[in-house]
Amino acid sequence: MASRTTPLNKSKDPLKGFRVAVIGASGYGGLQAIRLLKDHPDFQVTYLGGLRSAGKRWTDICSFIPLKNDLVIQSPDPDEIALYADFAILSLPNGIASKLAPELLTRNIRVVDLSADYRYRSLSQWKSVYFQVPDGIEREDNELCNEAVYGLAEWRINEIANSRLVAAPGCFPTASLLALLPFLKQGLIDNEGIIIDAKSGTSGGGRKPKEHLLLAECSESIAPYGVIGHRHTSEIEQIASEIASHSIQLQFTPHLVPMVRGILATVYCRLRDPGLTAEDCTTVLKAVYRDFPTIEVLPVGTYPQTKWVKHTNKAIISLQVDNRNRRLIIMSAIDNLIKGQAGQAVQCLNIMSGLRPQLGLPITPFYP
Amino acid sequence: MASRTTPLNKSKDPLKGFRVAVIGASGYGGLQAIRLLKDHPDFQVTYLGGLRSAGKRWTDICSFIPLKNDLVIQSPDPDEIALYADFAILSLPNGIASKLAPELLTRNIRVVDLSADYRYRSLSQWKSVYFQVPDGIEREDNELCNEAVYGLAEWRINEIANSRLVAAPGCFPTASLLALLPFLKQGLIDNEGIIIDAKSGTSGGGRKPKEHLLLAECSESIAPYGVIGHRHTSEIEQIASEIASHSIQLQFTPHLVPMVRGILATVYCRLRDPGLTAEDCTTVLKAVYRDFPTIEVLPVGTYPQTKWVKHTNKAIISLQVDNRNRRLIIMSAIDNLIKGQAGQAVQCLNIMSGLRPQLGLPITPFYP
Amino acid sequence: MASRTTPLNKSKDPLKGFRVAVIGASGYGGLQAIRLLKDHPDFQVTYLGGLRSAGKRWTDICSFIPLKNDLVIQSPDPDEIALYADFAILSLPNGIASKLAPELLTRNIRVVDLSADYRYRSLSQWKSVYFQVPDGIEREDNELCNEAVYGLAEWRINEIANSRLVAAPGCFPTASLLALLPFLKQGLIDNEGIIIDAKSGTSGGGRKPKEHLLLAECSESIAPYGVIGHRHTSEIEQIASEIASHSIQLQFTPHLVPMVRGILATVYCRLRDPGLTAEDCTTVLKAVYRDFPTIEVLPVGTYPQTKWVKHTNKAIISLQVDNRNRRLIIMSAIDNLIKGQAGQAVQCLNIMSGLRPQLGLPITPFYP
Amino acid sequence: MASRTTPLNKSKDPLKGFRVAVIGASGYGGLQAIRLLKDHPDFQVTYLGGLRSAGKRWTDICSFIPLKNDLVIQSPDPDEIALYADFAILSLPNGIASKLAPELLTRNIRVVDLSADYRYRSLSQWKSVYFQVPDGIEREDNELCNEAVYGLAEWRINEIANSRLVAAPGCFPTASLLALLPFLKQGLIDNEGIIIDAKSGTSGGGRKPKEHLLLAECSESIAPYGVIGHRHTSEIEQIASEIASHSIQLQFTPHLVPMVRGILATVYCRLRDPGLTAEDCTTVLKAVYRDFPTIEVLPVGTYPQTKWVKHTNKAIISLQVDNRNRRLIIMSAIDNLIKGQAGQAVQCLNIMSGLRPQLGLPITPFYP
Repeated sequence: MASRTTPLNKSKDPLKGFRVAVIGASGYGGLQAIRLLKDHPDFQVTYLGGLRSAGKRWTDICSFIPLKNDLVIQSPDPDEIALYADFAILSLPNGIASKLAPELLTRNIRVVDLSADYRYRSLSQWKSVYFQVPDGIEREDNELCNEAVYGLAEWRINEIANSRLVAAPGCFPTASLLALLPFLKQGLIDNEGIIIDAKSGTSGGGRKPKEHLLLAECSESIAPYGVIGHRHTSEIEQIASEIASHSIQLQFTPHLVPMVRGILATVYCRLRDPGLTAEDCTTVLKAVYRDFPTIEVLPVGTYPQTKWVKHTNKAIISLQVDNRNRRLIIMSAIDNLIKGQAGQAVQCLNIMSGLRPQLGLPITPFYP
Repeated sequence: MASRTTPLNKSKDPLKGFRVAVIGASGYGGLQAIRLLKDHPDFQVTYLGGLRSAGKRWTDICSFIPLKNDLVIQSPDPDEIALYADFAILSLPNGIASKLAPELLTRNIRVVDLSADYRYRSLSQWKSVYFQVPDGIEREDNELCNEAVYGLAEWRINEIANSRLVAAPGCFPTASLLALLPFLKQGLIDNEGIIIDAKSGTSGGGRKPKEHLLLAECSESIAPYGVIGHRHTSEIEQIASEIASHSIQLQFTPHLVPMVRGILATVYCRLRDPGLTAEDCTTVLKAVYRDFPTIEVLPVGTYPQTKWVKHTNKAIISLQVDNRNRRLIIMSAIDNLIKGQAGQAVQCLNIMSGLRPQLGLPITPFYP
Repeated sequence: MASRTTPLNKSKDPLKGFRVAVIGASGYGGLQAIRLLKDHPDFQVTYLGGLRSAGKRWTDICSFIPLKNDLVIQSPDPDEIALYADFAILSLPNGIASKLAPELLTRNIRVVDLSADYRYRSLSQWKSVYFQVPDGIEREDNELCNEAVYGLAEWRINEIANSRLVAAPGCFPTASLLALLPFLKQGLIDNEGIIIDAKSGTSGGGRKPKEHLLLAECSESIAPYGVIGHRHTSEIEQIASEIASHSIQLQFTPHLVPMVRGILATVYCRLRDPGLTAEDCTTVLKAVYRDFPTIEVLPVGTYPQTKWVKHTNKAIISLQVDNRNRRLIIMSAIDNLIKGQAGQAVQCLNIMSGLRPQLGLPITPFYP
Repeated sequence: MASRTTPLNKSKDPLKGFRVAVIGASGYGGLQAIRLLKDHPDFQVTYLGGLRSAGKRWTDICSFIPLKNDLVIQSPDPDEIALYADFAILSLPNGIASKLAPELLTRNIRVVDLSADYRYRSLSQWKSVYFQVPDGIEREDNELCNEAVYGLAEWRINEIANSRLVAAPGCFPTASLLALLPFLKQGLIDNEGIIIDAKSGTSGGGRKPKEHLLLAECSESIAPYGVIGHRHTSEIEQIASEIASHSIQLQFTPHLVPMVRGILATVYCRLRDPGLTAEDCTTVLKAVYRDFPTIEVLPVGTYPQTKWVKHTNKAIISLQVDNRNRRLIIMSAIDNLIKGQAGQAVQCLNIMSGLRPQLGLPITPFYP
């Protein structure tokens, strides 16, 4: 097990910035991380690792996102990564990251993992949710599960700053928790009866070809999936319970929407105080997020469109209250591949490096 | 005011079937009604009326859906309609139908109205919801509001059969109520806390050009709208309350989905009996709809896609139960322009004419 | 090799109609054929065969297109097929059909093959184009290649009527040839310099998952592919040359369009006679296709949209002439899975059975 | 008429950079220009003008693209613009720009006009093409038509640098000419028989609501429009003729593709020298554009997707040669709203200001 005797912050190369390895380069998470780091003033991609794509030049698989140093994707080797990188972003299938992360930590490489491997505080909880991971994955790194920081950047900034290992949140949990946590934290809503109806673009299903993600199949259609018991339910409940200091059981229903990117979470809960208005609740939300340019709170009556956050590391949130029944409806939109995945990972890298959290990350969308 | 001394059923012409006027031919509701009637064995479109399109030949505005008798769209005149038609489908803006319907009823033309004008039991309720109708609409037809039958075909079959005036339900109410009513009727769910999170394709916004319905605007995006107080909320609540014999207040949130057609309603409610399973509830649903080929109940674990009902007059419903908290989730998919509008109108015409409800209506989708 | 001593037309069962086996049921071609035959008054699907889907119930893989006799998909066995079917539609990967078709013909089953296996007059030509078929495919059925009829229904109606083996044309060749052949046949255009710029929805790439057909990849993008030497080039050239009685070499460039269904072919050629107008050429086109309800010729100035033929077995064609340079531009739209594949196959079955060519096939689209 | 006695380059404010007025702020062209200038290191938007949107705060109509100095959109007044701006980008309907541009030039404001008003060398040619402009537009600025520089940045860099008035090219002409000009310039292709088959996303039709641009209408469909005589034909021909030093008449056919952004031009022409290969022609292309990071030439066998240039000011071009008949096929992809409109306008501003042409403009897409 890696021990923590070395200083967390390696010195930044004054010319190149911090060096980052991206492992799992050809999937959407890795590709997106590379894209974001390419424009970042203080990070440089210095190593690409991959499983299926090992041996190929980056330029050959992604000519339209050229890297200055045209890298060859490597079959990931911890010793070699340690030569080239200060940080690693792991974008690997669930279960696989847990094989590599400990090796990197031992070599003083700080890790942001995009998979679910370190999102749970205990290995047993992880196993209870991800029991269907590929054969042959035997994990015994419960200590690391406990050490890892859940990288919901606006809610864990101090822990992330000092962490060796950050578990980047899932895309649905990011959209859902950003909407829900301010109200749970302040005890403004009932702990019972919370419902999250979430909608995602199809890139959330990854780049590996699957029949149901073909344009011919999912275009011109919307459908729920994973009703009751989707894996992200437990992830959301874990963090919601921590922030609420109370065990939260909620309903989470994802839907597949015929678009490339974007998540919208429509969150239904109930205010404890019947006197609170939508304006009051908006004031609460603005106060909680006032220091975070990555979160925009809309005025009452304007509702977020996922297009408004496309290609950005921003969440847009607004809410409405039905005074008839104390119902609070919070709507939260993110780009699933950026704020919901690779962008939040880079945001964590920024925080781990002592940089401004949103440094180098896109905040303004193109439109339409 | 029209009196009801004439027989309801005019005799069907043995060669041509019943004669139907479609008023509002060039909008999506009218166009869709014409398309469906064109293939119907017992109805014939004999009169086309329209406001903006008056004076044009049908073939010139819709060459790809030819009618045998190439009709010229007329500025609607009740006397002339009475010469040509036994039934009229009105597909006009809210408020406008109420000017024409009484005139047609007086002339013994039975009417199915696609607008909201006769969906409420009282004129005052209609006015409280539709106060933003075009200037100059002064309604005093409260008696007709009370007489009109809400055309949710599977739930009002006897009333429709004997009605002169049927108000075809809104698209969202159709999807929502088909899911909800079986459980409200049997008292299996709490009357409080019902949430309907609904998703619609953009054709639901009509054919009149609006910026937010441009492909450039709404493609690659999902967004909520009309949060709290969308007009369909009160329509759903009215019927839900009637069936439940209890005043129901619920949450209804529509979302705009980047697809042409289709509505999915995801309905969240709570079972009274903690012992009921998803299989139990599916059995209830199948029993309620066993006589209706227009409703398909899926086995537990399979969830409806709107693509499976595209271009059909069918609803597909399935459900799931979260045993942790008695939560019942019912999912209901329809084609918004057919089962949610013109198809249900033709289904009502069938019932009004003594024909099998689904006669001549498409039930099987093409795929993909 | 099958000999032709048995009568071509088996007798139709007066109750059930002709019996059809569909082999390759779960792909788009097979699925679409099943969907069309389900509504056909004179055919009945009596056998389903498949490779990957063998052993599954049809209802389990496609519940939304139920068949009365819920069939189990069989691993195709010629003797068994002969017990159950008069006709077979083969929807199998290129090269595989050639293993099954001879066996079926020997057993007096007439075959319509959706693959390219019998589209060329000689085996050597097929091999020169389809040299990349799966390993282990050794073909020696040159005689059958020569016997098979190219099933472009409007141009080969008599040959199809008397054929045991029909090769259904490719989707691009169907759209392209329907536009081009009338002018080649009558010698109205130059044989040189013909350009076909074709656009297809993504269902043309089949149902087998491939990365480039994922919605996340191909949505919001258009791209050419197979530039120079796409397999359909030679198929188009072969038929164009036969009809022109002159060797034709032309340019064919397909493009992938972000939509499920539809092909548009924009054909550029040059009129020999500088005096011909667009109206003249439209008259020619209308004359050629006057007996075919499956072909609609639009008036000059109206151009076909693929949406106008969606879910139909119809082609819509129109043209324009640039008088500056004798340029003739012909535009042809079809549904790639119906008129471009399974619908044309059923059209061939109709012809082979002595039925009206368009019997039971959809001609009118829904809209929008 | 404006005279040219004042120096072209105003001095740049060292803190804020050059000041730019955007007139026509709420349409796609204006919105996109604002979005690009917002991220530009040397320009600042200091004035917003508009017709329909005058009086509104920018933030209120486009909260997701905030400007530091939250501007109110003004009804454009030349004197006021002169107080606030060094440059103006005009994004106004055809004909309207010609009323404003002379007034701005007189006040020493250099203008980039996104409309077609100054794309033609003579007023008479403009009138022959744009005779359908709004009533009441009387133009007599032939001198300005002659003075204006056609802003195809890679081909007019010196003229743009010294110009007071730049006419930004149309989106289709940009994609088409970038592909075609290198070969016309060097006399490598026949002047006759050039065909441009172009495909555009629907944002090219503007933000003003029109029925045929509704998602419900144009989604899931592709269609040609403006066949023979589309306005961009003459625009392309004018520049092609200038570069070829020979009168060029060509075929240009646009198609509407169901996607938001992007243009693909597939250009068919014929090589004069039968010995030239695709590699030879690619070498020519690379040589012509070697100094322009805004143009990427792909290796033979790789074809551009519009998604690869989405949200960038880059064109990606590749080509193929059919050796059977000397056919050269050049494919060119751009983002219609950036390289095809507002991005190229900012590129011109850069050149006019002595900055690097691509300064501050996005070159790398996000993906997918």
